Amino acid sequence: MLKEELYKLIIKKKSFLCVGLDSDIAKLPKHLLDFDDPVFEFNKAIIDATIDYTVAYKPNLAFYESRGVAGMQSLEKTIQYLNKFPGQLFTIADAKRGDIGNTSKLYAKSFFGNEDVSKNFDAVTVAPYMGEDSVAPFLEYKGKWIILLALTSNKGAENFQLLESEGKKIFEHVLEKSGKWGTSENMMYVVGATQARMLTEIRKIVPDHFLLVPGVGAQGGSLEEVAKYGLNDGCGLLVNASRSIIFASNGNDFAEHAKSEAGAMQKIMQTLL
Amino acid sequence: MLKEELYKLIIKKKSFLCVGLDSDIAKLPKHLLDFDDPVFEFNKAIIDATIDYTVAYKPNLAFYESRGVAGMQSLEKTIQYLNKFPGQLFTIADAKRGDIGNTSKLYAKSFFGNEDVSKNFDAVTVAPYMGEDSVAPFLEYKGKWIILLALTSNKGAENFQLLESEGKKIFEHVLEKSGKWGTSENMMYVVGATQARMLTEIRKIVPDHFLLVPGVGAQGGSLEEVAKYGLNDGCGLLVNASRSIIFASNGNDFAEHAKSEAGAMQKIMQTLL
Repeated sequence: MLKEELYKLIIKKKSFLCVGLDSDIAKLPKHLLDFDDPVFEFNKAIIDATIDYTVAYKPNLAFYESRGVAGMQSLEKTIQYLNKFPGQLFTIADAKRGDIGNTSKLYAKSFFGNEDVSKNFDAVTVAPYMGEDSVAPFLEYKGKWIILLALTSNKGAENFQLLESEGKKIFEHVLEKSGKWGTSENMMYVVGATQARMLTEIRKIVPDHFLLVPGVGAQGGSLEEVAKYGLNDGCGLLVNASRSIIFASNGNDFAEHAKSEAGAMQKIMQTLL
Repeated sequence: MLKEELYKLIIKKKSFLCVGLDSDIAKLPKHLLDFDDPVFEFNKAIIDATIDYTVAYKPNLAFYESRGVAGMQSLEKTIQYLNKFPGQLFTIADAKRGDIGNTSKLYAKSFFGNEDVSKNFDAVTVAPYMGEDSVAPFLEYKGKWIILLALTSNKGAENFQLLESEGKKIFEHVLEKSGKWGTSENMMYVVGATQARMLTEIRKIVPDHFLLVPGVGAQGGSLEEVAKYGLNDGCGLLVNASRSIIFASNGNDFAEHAKSEAGAMQKIMQTLL
């Protein structure tokens, strides 16, 4: 999906909501466990219930890989289902990969280069520690995106991301250097909502890029603050919520509750846009 | 596997060789493609041929994930085969994972906490960018190891790992800080062989830890140099070779050639130990 298409989608839905499909099988509504693939049934119901309010879906790969082959089947069915809505949503594989060129090429192929295009994502999250040659192979796919970790929302962000070097923090080096590897047409950044005030400084370095902002909801960040400091002329934000939406209820009515939660966030986003 | 058991294994085999199972299906000997699972057949033959000379095997997950569900089946069969040799080899999932606590717990479970213990690895590679809470969940498994990226062997290592902060390079901060999260009994570091001379400085910070050293062979590092600067009283090194061993030949005799290559490295290692 191209940047202008993503922006049109945001305007159409009046939303910049990303729903994280952190579909932990241990937390699913009990009645779903009778299905052959409870995680896929859950995801399908969540997608159907929330699609009017949601521009992006982000399966977190840990929740699939941890179930081995069965989990990878759930993931494959989920991305294939998402791809039944072309132009209506943006897909993100939250994988946080990062390896050297040769291996990175294969990771890029895993997410972007399947011959069966129904298995391909629009974007993948990548860790920057190994530098440019771990990022470059992902940028060879036209219309695909890399979402690079910059400033994360966890406590451990302090350990290395906030160290200073040559008058700048490490995550600022990540923003500056990677800004030369890709463009705002194929690169986004993960910036945690718990650091909303730092968005002002971040916007000085990357005014035009989309930022994927986790940490609103379960992790406690404020949507209004994120919008205040993070919005740009082309929206420039995808705000992710996972548990607060998908696990809003674990009864038979889980999808309706997810819909309400997503709808509530969309309403706020509409006023902020 | 405990540290002292790994050391005994090294002494017994007179080797600190790790064979990287970067089993790219596009590079396999053609005759294997007739099997149901060519990658597993290849890995099995490589393991059988090299086990006398090899202390550790390291499947690189990109080569499995990029083949979707079929690839994950190859990986599962491979780790289950490796676990048929208890105490005779050390297993490393080269995954370079790294996410926040909640997700990291699931990754740790994927590699260490399967109920079917035949699917569990001894160690997993992890990226440090997200800090302590991305590492901690892996350390809760007794007898299991985290192998943290410190100084990698690729060109992109310059981008962030070699930046200076407070008089130390970022990878040195990684070594120092993470040294407080785990011990030399449950933590190793990835240090690229192309940076062999820097091992002297690294050994000052982590004298007792095992280092996993890729980049010998295909990436051009020298085994003698690595040993000179990296060996410690408990060996402290696992030197990885992938393509130079597993793809030594792509004919019917691929396993014999792999055996010769592994044997040649073992002979050098024997003199270095």
